[in-house]
Amino acid sequence: MKHGVMRPGHVQIRVLDIEEAVTHYTDLMGLIETDRDDQGRVYLKGWTEVDKFSVVLRKADEPGMDFLAFKVLDEQTLNKLEANLNAYGCATETVAAEELKGCGRRVQFVAPSGHLFELFADKEQTGKWGVSNVNPEAWPRGLQGMQCTRFDHTLLYGPNVEACTQLFCDVLGFGLAEQVVDPDGNKIGSFMSVGMKAHDIAFIECPEKAKLHHTSYFLESWESVLKAADLISMTDTNIDIGPTRHGLTHGQTIYFFDPSGNRCEVFCGGDYYYPDHEPITWKAEDLGKAIFYHDRVLNERFLSVLT
Amino acid sequence: MKHGVMRPGHVQIRVLDIEEAVTHYTDLMGLIETDRDDQGRVYLKGWTEVDKFSVVLRKADEPGMDFLAFKVLDEQTLNKLEANLNAYGCATETVAAEELKGCGRRVQFVAPSGHLFELFADKEQTGKWGVSNVNPEAWPRGLQGMQCTRFDHTLLYGPNVEACTQLFCDVLGFGLAEQVVDPDGNKIGSFMSVGMKAHDIAFIECPEKAKLHHTSYFLESWESVLKAADLISMTDTNIDIGPTRHGLTHGQTIYFFDPSGNRCEVFCGGDYYYPDHEPITWKAEDLGKAIFYHDRVLNERFLSVLT
Amino acid sequence: MKHGVMRPGHVQIRVLDIEEAVTHYTDLMGLIETDRDDQGRVYLKGWTEVDKFSVVLRKADEPGMDFLAFKVLDEQTLNKLEANLNAYGCATETVAAEELKGCGRRVQFVAPSGHLFELFADKEQTGKWGVSNVNPEAWPRGLQGMQCTRFDHTLLYGPNVEACTQLFCDVLGFGLAEQVVDPDGNKIGSFMSVGMKAHDIAFIECPEKAKLHHTSYFLESWESVLKAADLISMTDTNIDIGPTRHGLTHGQTIYFFDPSGNRCEVFCGGDYYYPDHEPITWKAEDLGKAIFYHDRVLNERFLSVLT
Amino acid sequence: MKHGVMRPGHVQIRVLDIEEAVTHYTDLMGLIETDRDDQGRVYLKGWTEVDKFSVVLRKADEPGMDFLAFKVLDEQTLNKLEANLNAYGCATETVAAEELKGCGRRVQFVAPSGHLFELFADKEQTGKWGVSNVNPEAWPRGLQGMQCTRFDHTLLYGPNVEACTQLFCDVLGFGLAEQVVDPDGNKIGSFMSVGMKAHDIAFIECPEKAKLHHTSYFLESWESVLKAADLISMTDTNIDIGPTRHGLTHGQTIYFFDPSGNRCEVFCGGDYYYPDHEPITWKAEDLGKAIFYHDRVLNERFLSVLT
Repeated sequence: MKHGVMRPGHVQIRVLDIEEAVTHYTDLMGLIETDRDDQGRVYLKGWTEVDKFSVVLRKADEPGMDFLAFKVLDEQTLNKLEANLNAYGCATETVAAEELKGCGRRVQFVAPSGHLFELFADKEQTGKWGVSNVNPEAWPRGLQGMQCTRFDHTLLYGPNVEACTQLFCDVLGFGLAEQVVDPDGNKIGSFMSVGMKAHDIAFIECPEKAKLHHTSYFLESWESVLKAADLISMTDTNIDIGPTRHGLTHGQTIYFFDPSGNRCEVFCGGDYYYPDHEPITWKAEDLGKAIFYHDRVLNERFLSVLT
Repeated sequence: MKHGVMRPGHVQIRVLDIEEAVTHYTDLMGLIETDRDDQGRVYLKGWTEVDKFSVVLRKADEPGMDFLAFKVLDEQTLNKLEANLNAYGCATETVAAEELKGCGRRVQFVAPSGHLFELFADKEQTGKWGVSNVNPEAWPRGLQGMQCTRFDHTLLYGPNVEACTQLFCDVLGFGLAEQVVDPDGNKIGSFMSVGMKAHDIAFIECPEKAKLHHTSYFLESWESVLKAADLISMTDTNIDIGPTRHGLTHGQTIYFFDPSGNRCEVFCGGDYYYPDHEPITWKAEDLGKAIFYHDRVLNERFLSVLT
Repeated sequence: MKHGVMRPGHVQIRVLDIEEAVTHYTDLMGLIETDRDDQGRVYLKGWTEVDKFSVVLRKADEPGMDFLAFKVLDEQTLNKLEANLNAYGCATETVAAEELKGCGRRVQFVAPSGHLFELFADKEQTGKWGVSNVNPEAWPRGLQGMQCTRFDHTLLYGPNVEACTQLFCDVLGFGLAEQVVDPDGNKIGSFMSVGMKAHDIAFIECPEKAKLHHTSYFLESWESVLKAADLISMTDTNIDIGPTRHGLTHGQTIYFFDPSGNRCEVFCGGDYYYPDHEPITWKAEDLGKAIFYHDRVLNERFLSVLT
Repeated sequence: MKHGVMRPGHVQIRVLDIEEAVTHYTDLMGLIETDRDDQGRVYLKGWTEVDKFSVVLRKADEPGMDFLAFKVLDEQTLNKLEANLNAYGCATETVAAEELKGCGRRVQFVAPSGHLFELFADKEQTGKWGVSNVNPEAWPRGLQGMQCTRFDHTLLYGPNVEACTQLFCDVLGFGLAEQVVDPDGNKIGSFMSVGMKAHDIAFIECPEKAKLHHTSYFLESWESVLKAADLISMTDTNIDIGPTRHGLTHGQTIYFFDPSGNRCEVFCGGDYYYPDHEPITWKAEDLGKAIFYHDRVLNERFLSVLT
């Protein structure tokens, strides 16, 4: 949080069928629907999140990610970061407040990977779902399915990982927690954290621009990962891989697909990060173990990414 | 235990290199070495087992299982079961007491699948390893690796699953806990229990006789399965599949190979069985989900079995 | 199961208010209501139990246990055990089939502790709740609260523990898994198993006859014990002690009270038992550690028992 | 981290006997001894901590805490915070670099509660213990006892909780994550976070100055808390309370004492914090549930604190 960026604030995901998607993200994954808007977009959040929403589903002709936004400390920080982006040579555009219901103005920019990002300072706070701010219980009754606690991070594929890393570290104050380096010393994977999490945003080098690998959601425990896996099977959901552990970050994880083909991860655990931590380096030739610590090979499906 | 058979008492496994095998079963899996004999065989057990040993490693030119033995209530029960086997048309031979150190006489027979089985009534009891019979602590300090608690069961491949099932149920008092049935109604998999465990012995139909699919060892918890998976990776052990859950029995599991190529399973959980339980039936066309509940497909390696 | 007794089949519990009790045992504990009868009794079971019911609630003026029943292999076994009880000097009475709906005739006897016990061979089987016998899923969706899987055992207080132990072992084929012995060598606690469970019935010496200490229900995991503890707090349920581990059996546990004052236990884990296991002995002077392994002292509430 | 303070960097604890204390913090709790100095002080750390040490044991005539230090981003931040403390009216003193081996200069100040605090920017980094920065394994083999991963936080008792809260929030950039408020609206407990952790420092109002309630260490999972509890019993260590959950922060926890009488906590889980979170408020009249979520009463021992 060196430059006032707090956390991933929301992601807008394209889905082919809104109601199928809502069923997937709420009944199966346990996110909470908090609103819909005139455009037909659906707003969701995990139960521990204090802001009104963190995931937006938009009907479209093909799956993928529209944009990923980060929440910053306050309006003053937002102005300063906008200026710094511009000074860095990164153009910005402003989206008016309330274009997303309950969200203040958003400053958008395109990273060298081709992905669209946003910064914002204000969003309506509705508090944690189902628990009070006074004498709060440990968890709310009535959670569904996987009981995801929060939207956590996104892994993106695109070109110019090194340039993206510099932009996020130098201008936005992220830290490079882990990296994948090829035998020539090129950074082909970059996992960056803006708080204490193992990562808040990750890039993997890929010639095509603006690809989404997955959005990720946090669970309470390794037992929650097992129950998520069970639910994937019970609901005939398309699984990718897991339960397993990552080498990178050492989180415990499972991957699967929403009905539109967007990959979702639910995970628990994982390392923590502070700005004085040396980056962890994974060798590209050991990428199998870096990604799937137990199998130590990449499955083919994992390598596929969306437009 | 309707006919006095209590549990799997020991399995003798063929390994290509004794010391490599000992390292695998003790350092990695956490079994305890309890003795060696003149033939160079090594005796092992899990820490919760009261008998002197449950696993015997024998150096041989090819991997596989020599025999699987069941412990019966007492000598009188052993005599009666021997007579009943003979009356059923199943020839028996006796191995003298102390051919395995500390073990009483063993009655051997060959099942229609081609596998060699044994029954015995007496074995030296050395008690649980590292804990007392008076005011016992919850677990002993000094356990290694996966901390396997006991040898649990074996899955065997061979012909005549139906005949094997009848022999074990009718003569030895096992119950059919779960079965796999093909579209013609043939039983191609049989999972039988002689106590409350999900199974003590399992057969899968295969034209070749006397094949070993895997020996299996019990762990405390799903977290133990994760740590077992981690250790497999840390020690560059050849993994088969997991962590995952079985459909059959619903146990939580991981498979890997010993240095000789014998498949090992460590698992936790799983259903319990009583003699009045109706058999659970899995359809052969859903065998993927029956075996690997999360992936719902069989990996090719799983289908390979040893001589 | 040496003499054909399989397991605890049902317990009838006295409660002061039926609907309050049903809410406790279903909403909070997750048992399933399966029937009611003309007397107003309510029939419950855990979701993994194949018989129609295992817990019966009866409205009465004071809490406690009416009787505990064990299911035996078949009618022939029932007749033989009845004869053996009589031969042992233990009078029996028969309750007609269908006095409990769906249950065959029950053979009742009073143990030297003053408690009423039953044996029965037949009960309507409705199968596991919410899962099929064909390709069964890992668990049913829609379970409530603590999601108890089964009625497991009962701990009873009364005189003549030694005589009760002999009756259950000699006539009914139980094994003495664990015992508490005072400095004079008297058995003041007896934990007996009729299958592989750590215990199916337990007695602790007490001058008053026919006291109930608690009924106990099985959970999946230590995490389930945590969530049970959370639910106890969220519902303002009267807690006794836990989460903790027992020294005896080493199960992981929590105790609390139903609205009528009947103590309930939910637990997971614990040792397994075979008939050739030497009894584990706990010294009476270390009873604190035997009961509550972590605190190593008995709380006063634990010592209180019901009529 | 709004003002550049990263985390609790070290705590110096007074113990009556150094070797007994080392055995407690290493053999039992699993901290790693990393150095000793001329004064006989012993330096320890959890295996995930990158700095050389985080706990210092000093032989003294009575137990308690000498000081608690926070690591800041860099020397420039240290200078600025020093100036800001002085400007706030809080006097500072400097301890020369290397007074603690491997640690740069430390800026000390006394809070209104009477406790001595430190800030520092530099400490020798020895990296995580037993794992590499390149292709790191999930965890190192050879960890002992409870396998504590890091020193996490401290709870202090003393006067002027409100003033301490203002100092830490206004000058050092902490956020008030949770508070305990009495019926008159006075803040009698303050739990503050400087990163994403549920808290990094906590104060509870008490007339006596400079008391230590406990130092706290982080574990991986609720199963680790169970094993910690088992080890407390196996080693006849003096337990305070647990395993249980806190209402405040919702972490899962157990308390016990080192041989000198210093209270230690090991815990896992717990809520996360961001600077835009509203403070959680616990009512003083519900302090029992706030502290021990399951029992909902304070045990007497918990209220005792050290000089």
